[in-house]
Amino acid sequence: MSRYAQAGVDLAGAEAAKARIGRAVAGTRTALSVGRVGAFGGMVRIPPGMQRPTLVLSTDGVGTKVLVAREARRFDTVGEDLVNHSVNDILVHGATPIAFMDYIAGSGLEVEQIAGIVDGIARACRSHAMALAGGETAQMPGLYQSGTYDLAGTIVGVVEEDRALHGDAIVPGDVLLGYASTGLHTNGYTLARSIVFERMGLRLDDPLGETGRTVAEALLAVHRSYFRSVMPVIERLHGLAHITGGGIGGNLVRILPAGCEAVVDPASWDPPPLFVTLQQAGQVSTDEMRDVFNLGVGLIAVLPPEAVPAAKAAAEADGVTTWQMGDIRRGDPAVRFAHS
Amino acid sequence: MSRYAQAGVDLAGAEAAKARIGRAVAGTRTALSVGRVGAFGGMVRIPPGMQRPTLVLSTDGVGTKVLVAREARRFDTVGEDLVNHSVNDILVHGATPIAFMDYIAGSGLEVEQIAGIVDGIARACRSHAMALAGGETAQMPGLYQSGTYDLAGTIVGVVEEDRALHGDAIVPGDVLLGYASTGLHTNGYTLARSIVFERMGLRLDDPLGETGRTVAEALLAVHRSYFRSVMPVIERLHGLAHITGGGIGGNLVRILPAGCEAVVDPASWDPPPLFVTLQQAGQVSTDEMRDVFNLGVGLIAVLPPEAVPAAKAAAEADGVTTWQMGDIRRGDPAVRFAHS
Repeated sequence: MSRYAQAGVDLAGAEAAKARIGRAVAGTRTALSVGRVGAFGGMVRIPPGMQRPTLVLSTDGVGTKVLVAREARRFDTVGEDLVNHSVNDILVHGATPIAFMDYIAGSGLEVEQIAGIVDGIARACRSHAMALAGGETAQMPGLYQSGTYDLAGTIVGVVEEDRALHGDAIVPGDVLLGYASTGLHTNGYTLARSIVFERMGLRLDDPLGETGRTVAEALLAVHRSYFRSVMPVIERLHGLAHITGGGIGGNLVRILPAGCEAVVDPASWDPPPLFVTLQQAGQVSTDEMRDVFNLGVGLIAVLPPEAVPAAKAAAEADGVTTWQMGDIRRGDPAVRFAHS
Repeated sequence: MSRYAQAGVDLAGAEAAKARIGRAVAGTRTALSVGRVGAFGGMVRIPPGMQRPTLVLSTDGVGTKVLVAREARRFDTVGEDLVNHSVNDILVHGATPIAFMDYIAGSGLEVEQIAGIVDGIARACRSHAMALAGGETAQMPGLYQSGTYDLAGTIVGVVEEDRALHGDAIVPGDVLLGYASTGLHTNGYTLARSIVFERMGLRLDDPLGETGRTVAEALLAVHRSYFRSVMPVIERLHGLAHITGGGIGGNLVRILPAGCEAVVDPASWDPPPLFVTLQQAGQVSTDEMRDVFNLGVGLIAVLPPEAVPAAKAAAEADGVTTWQMGDIRRGDPAVRFAHS
C-alpha cells in the first residue's frame, strides 16, 4: 500500500504539505534503494560483499509520548523518537539499519500534522543513511479518539551472522558501561503524565522541578540514538541492552547467558533531576522507578575491562557521557542492584 | 522491544493464553530464523545462494475491518487478513516473504484476544513458510476508544534484483488476467459497514442479500493470498497489481509504464452478489463502487497472451478462478473501463 491509498486523508488544499512529505521521503533514498516511491512495496538491496547477511528486525511504537506531543502541537520529534528507538533495538544485535517503514493511524489527522511526523522520521532516517522505504497512513474515526493518532514503525538492519551480538559472549568479570539518556526516551509516559499533569497540576510551558527545562522540553526530549557512540567499538563488546520499558533490570536480564549475574551499583550515577522530581512528586517507590523508567541510562554495554577506554572514547566523540555502573559475576542470570 | 515489555497487558491469570502466544510464535520459525524469541530484534538470514538479494518491504493495517471482527468476537481472521494482504503487496514485485512483524495496540485488550489475533497471524505466516520475527503489543487507553484495537504489520520479502517486477515490462498487446477475491478483502469497510449496519439495519447473524452467507461470514471472509496461484508462473508475467483501496483503476495504474493504457472490460465478469447488494442497498454510483471496492477482483496480472493458459492453470491448481478482463493498448498510462 502507498502512503495515501485508502487513507481517507483529505489532501485537497494541502498540496504544499503533500509535496513536503514527498520531498522528505525522497530525501532518504540511499545507494541501496531500488524501485520508485509509490510502488506496492519499498525496495532496498542487501549491501554487496556480505558473506552471510542476516536481517535484524524490530517493530515498535512510541507509546503515549504521542499524547504529550499532540498537546504541545509538536509532530516531528516523536517521528525522530520512533526511528532512534528502533535503531537502538537492532544496534544491540550489532546491526546497521538500512530501511524504515512507518504506520500513522488516527482520527481527524490533518495533512500538516502527517507532514510534521514524516519530517521527523525522515530526518532521523537521513541521520542514519537509512531509506524510508514505505509508510501507511490511515484515518479511522471509529477506532481512535478524535484528534489522536498512533505512531508505529518497523526497522530493517543487517549484520554478518557470525558477528551478531546475542549476549552469549558475556562472561564473569565483564564490566557494565552505562550510556546517558536524554530523558524518558519513550518509556514511562503514562506514569509521568499522571504525575506531571494531574498530581503536580503543571502545564506544558511551566518549568519542571530542578530540570531547568519546561515540561514540554523535558518530556519531549528526543530519544537518543547510540549508533555513532557504539558502532566504532562494536566488535569489542560482549553484549548491549537498550533500556526501554522494564527499566535497567527488565532489559539487561534479556542478554545474560547462563551462569552470569549482573550487579548494578546505584551509587555509580545520579539519576538526572527529571527522575528525582518524578519520584518525589509522585511518591513513587524506588522499585517502581527502576521498573518503569530508565533513570538516566539509555543503553548498557557489557564488555571486558580492557575495552572500556576505547568504548568511552567513542561515546565521548559522539557527545555521550558514559560511566562504569557495575559488573558481571558468577550466578544465575538476573540483575541485582547492589546495596548502596 | 518484546511482545510484552511496556505493553501494560495484565498477564496475571492469563498464563494459558500467554503460552498459546509463545507456541504460535515459535511455530513460525523457519530454516532462515536466527537468534531467539525475546531478543530486542528478530533475526532471519537472507536465503543463501542469491546473487543480488533485494528486500521488498510493506507496512499496512487492516483498516476498520477490525471493528467488524470485534463485534463478531472473532480475532484470528483479521490476523490472517493482515498477513495475506501484505504477502500480496510484495508478491506483485515478485518477492517471496521471509519475515513478518505485527503491531497490536488498543485499549482494554484482553490477553485472550491478543492470543486470538496472534494465532491468526501465525497461521498465515506458517502457510507461507515465513517467520513471525517480532511483534509489539501496547495498551493506550488515552488514545484508543475503549475496547477497540488497531492492527498493523510489516512484511519482509526477497527477490533477485534483476527479477523484481516493476511493471516496466508491460507492452501494448498484453492481457489483463483477473483473479477472484473472496469478498471485500480489507478495503471499503467504512462504506460497507455504514450500508449494512445503518442503512440496511442488519445484525451480524442476519443473512446478507443474495450472498448465501450471514453478514459476519460475508464481511469477515479472509483476504486471499495469491502467492501459490502466481509464484509458479511469476517469470512469465509483465506486471501484477494488488487491488486494494482505490479499486481496479487506482491500483492498476500504479504499474503502467509510459505509452501503455489499460482497458478493462466490465462485461467480462459479474461482480459477486455481495457487491450487488452493497450497491443497491447503498444507492452507490458505479464510479464510487469502482473507487472503493475490488468488485470481486483481488489481483490483476498483466502478461503476454501466450502465457495466459499457464497462468490460468497455476491459479486453478490453487483453487482460484481467473478470467481475461481486458488488455493493454498504446496510450497514456491510465485505466479506462470500456463501455459495455
